[in-house]
Amino acid sequence: MRVYDLIEKKKHGKALEQQEINELIQAYTAGKIPDYQMSAFLMAVYFRGMTDKETFDLTGAMECSGDRISPDTFGPRSVDKHSTGGVGDKTTLIVAPIVAAAGGIVAKMSGRGLGHTGGTVDKLESFPGFRTSLSPDDFANQVQKHGIAVIGQSADLAPADKKLYALRDVTATVDSIPLIASSIMCKKLAAGTRSIVLDVKCGAGAFMQTPEAARELAQLMVRIGQAHHRHTAAIISNMDIPLGHAVGNILEVKEAIEVLRGKGPQDLREVCLQLATLMIALSLQKEQDEAATLARDILDSGHAYEKFCQWIAAQGGDVSFARDPEKFPKAAHSAALCAPCDGYMLSCNAGAIGNAATLLGAGRATKDAAIDHTAGIVLLKKPGDAVVKGETVAQLYTSQEELLSPAAIRIEEALTYTAERPLTQKLIYDILI
Amino acid sequence: MRVYDLIEKKKHGKALEQQEINELIQAYTAGKIPDYQMSAFLMAVYFRGMTDKETFDLTGAMECSGDRISPDTFGPRSVDKHSTGGVGDKTTLIVAPIVAAAGGIVAKMSGRGLGHTGGTVDKLESFPGFRTSLSPDDFANQVQKHGIAVIGQSADLAPADKKLYALRDVTATVDSIPLIASSIMCKKLAAGTRSIVLDVKCGAGAFMQTPEAARELAQLMVRIGQAHHRHTAAIISNMDIPLGHAVGNILEVKEAIEVLRGKGPQDLREVCLQLATLMIALSLQKEQDEAATLARDILDSGHAYEKFCQWIAAQGGDVSFARDPEKFPKAAHSAALCAPCDGYMLSCNAGAIGNAATLLGAGRATKDAAIDHTAGIVLLKKPGDAVVKGETVAQLYTSQEELLSPAAIRIEEALTYTAERPLTQKLIYDILI
Repeated sequence: MRVYDLIEKKKHGKALEQQEINELIQAYTAGKIPDYQMSAFLMAVYFRGMTDKETFDLTGAMECSGDRISPDTFGPRSVDKHSTGGVGDKTTLIVAPIVAAAGGIVAKMSGRGLGHTGGTVDKLESFPGFRTSLSPDDFANQVQKHGIAVIGQSADLAPADKKLYALRDVTATVDSIPLIASSIMCKKLAAGTRSIVLDVKCGAGAFMQTPEAARELAQLMVRIGQAHHRHTAAIISNMDIPLGHAVGNILEVKEAIEVLRGKGPQDLREVCLQLATLMIALSLQKEQDEAATLARDILDSGHAYEKFCQWIAAQGGDVSFARDPEKFPKAAHSAALCAPCDGYMLSCNAGAIGNAATLLGAGRATKDAAIDHTAGIVLLKKPGDAVVKGETVAQLYTSQEELLSPAAIRIEEALTYTAERPLTQKLIYDILI
Repeated sequence: MRVYDLIEKKKHGKALEQQEINELIQAYTAGKIPDYQMSAFLMAVYFRGMTDKETFDLTGAMECSGDRISPDTFGPRSVDKHSTGGVGDKTTLIVAPIVAAAGGIVAKMSGRGLGHTGGTVDKLESFPGFRTSLSPDDFANQVQKHGIAVIGQSADLAPADKKLYALRDVTATVDSIPLIASSIMCKKLAAGTRSIVLDVKCGAGAFMQTPEAARELAQLMVRIGQAHHRHTAAIISNMDIPLGHAVGNILEVKEAIEVLRGKGPQDLREVCLQLATLMIALSLQKEQDEAATLARDILDSGHAYEKFCQWIAAQGGDVSFARDPEKFPKAAHSAALCAPCDGYMLSCNAGAIGNAATLLGAGRATKDAAIDHTAGIVLLKKPGDAVVKGETVAQLYTSQEELLSPAAIRIEEALTYTAERPLTQKLIYDILI
């Protein structure tokens, strides 16, 4: 194999063979192909795309580039969930215990937050003592005993993807659907569950800006999963506005506990039930209707909440915080943002809200930055809600008082109002199974 | 400027500003931009192209990246000629003295041969003592005194192009018309002549395989030259078959001397007269007809030959070899290739003939390889010529006897025959002025 020939082949729109893709990925991961050749190849992929077969092969090659958990490890009921990244997305905290309580096996590796989207591992670390790094044996034992464990992603999971993504990030080759799909799916395949449910976010706070682009990505990821013999399904959900009211780690954990206790925002509950339904349907081989009823019953009966407490305790977290969320530390500084007029909130740009929360300390601007678990935003009003001039629409929290003003300005810019009651936005655009 | 943004801009088909192109080229030449970003940019250029304005700006940025000769140095009659590379192309040896004898100022920097195409500097070094490296003062003095000098390209002429070309060469981004055109023209601009005549070769032995692609390249280069205030013209000439009969350094010098003495192959004479006509027309501001008559008269009267001898002597070459070409050393080994049938020669693939000559020692496979000045091929028959079975169609020359057989096989494969007299091929496809 000469890399030059593979670049040339892709440049002319021809499909690479599996053997060629395997050699390309292996040699690149081993440092035998210079970045300048790989980036030219990636730009050619941006323009020429990849066939399904090529995308399946690329995903498989990256899956096999490092540590892998065999799909036999956790058995036929094992199931994973992946979100393409959203603002206020705390669904894993709710969905994982619902599915585990239903009898599914949730063995999940999760990422940390970067940029304006939060990471599940960061949220879980809001519990004092919670361990997000377990040995392979401890991970397997906990999964076997409790049917649920969520840990940080292994450093050697799909190293080819890690190296490729870093290169794409600086060469403007991130936004290619086959490259995005293979990057996500290679890690899901390597994590070894039999079923995979994807939540493809769509809108102002998501990478995919239109339902069409989100659908294309979701469909391709489902095909990749199925080609690699995993039960795979996806939803396409709205990320024009944040999910739920809370954005920021402790704030989101508290909101998740509300939902687990039968309260909480309706939109968050609805997305969680839909994701849980798909995960139960795939992992326990049930019909959609039956799975939906089961998910709702488990949530409403408090079984999911009990499983959540069990899970937090199993991973070393102080469960008294789950029992009494008021124990969580509060931000040292807070400010209220008020409605500038009577009427209705029209829009609440999720991307801008995510950036404002990051500014307050809730997220990371760079990979190794520390985060402020108390920081964030609670949206008391969301699009469609009636507002009265002077009423609080958002509450800001942070440890650094000087950040309140600049964050407030960003949030003000993210919110728009209207005199007439606006149409309700769709929450879930599509379900692919 | 963030390189990322420039890649993104080009990727989306938007045109870069002059300032952006200047900064990109300056920073890349200074080693401040990594190759992996530049190669992604170049691949985006391959797919998106460049506007004329961008191409003019890129050419100017590369022109200014190193040493430059001011267009005032050699005055208004100064003229350069560039060929995009062909097999058996010894036109500079004939054209330069014609134009100088007519009163033009030929101050030329020329490349060495690489791959299957020969370089003028290599051919000139067939004369014992000939110096292809002159100090700037000696170069200027000789030009002033004799109106003619041809030297090797300065190492610091357009270093941006040198660095970019090396990257394009390993990232499959060579074949982009704006990148090819700017790469050629930046060096012509930096070499400082007022007029530029381009010979764009087209066919099996050339980089441009079709007349359409060759025309596109030629037209763009003419527009670049004119945008940078140089008189610029181009011809598009056939390179499906080698030019003339001789391929290889001493063999080509001897053939050039034949033409200068009023004999030699008709095709070579015709291309040389056309190029000389354009160079005279541009540099001396004459009408085409008048320039054509002047060029022919100068060649036929022997004035061009006298100027040639003057030139060889001025650059330290032993002029007795020009007076008596039989003095040139002959290859130690030779072999004849015979016609396999009665009929006509149909085709003679220039690329394959060039490669066979390189194999015999006439060219370089790598940049620093030595060449065998005596090696090469003389084609006794060319397409359209009648042949009799067993008659010699090509004579091979080399210093290494063991190379004769493999080269002969390649040449046999390059030649085809037919029973009917084939149509004559066009020699010059177009003239752009």
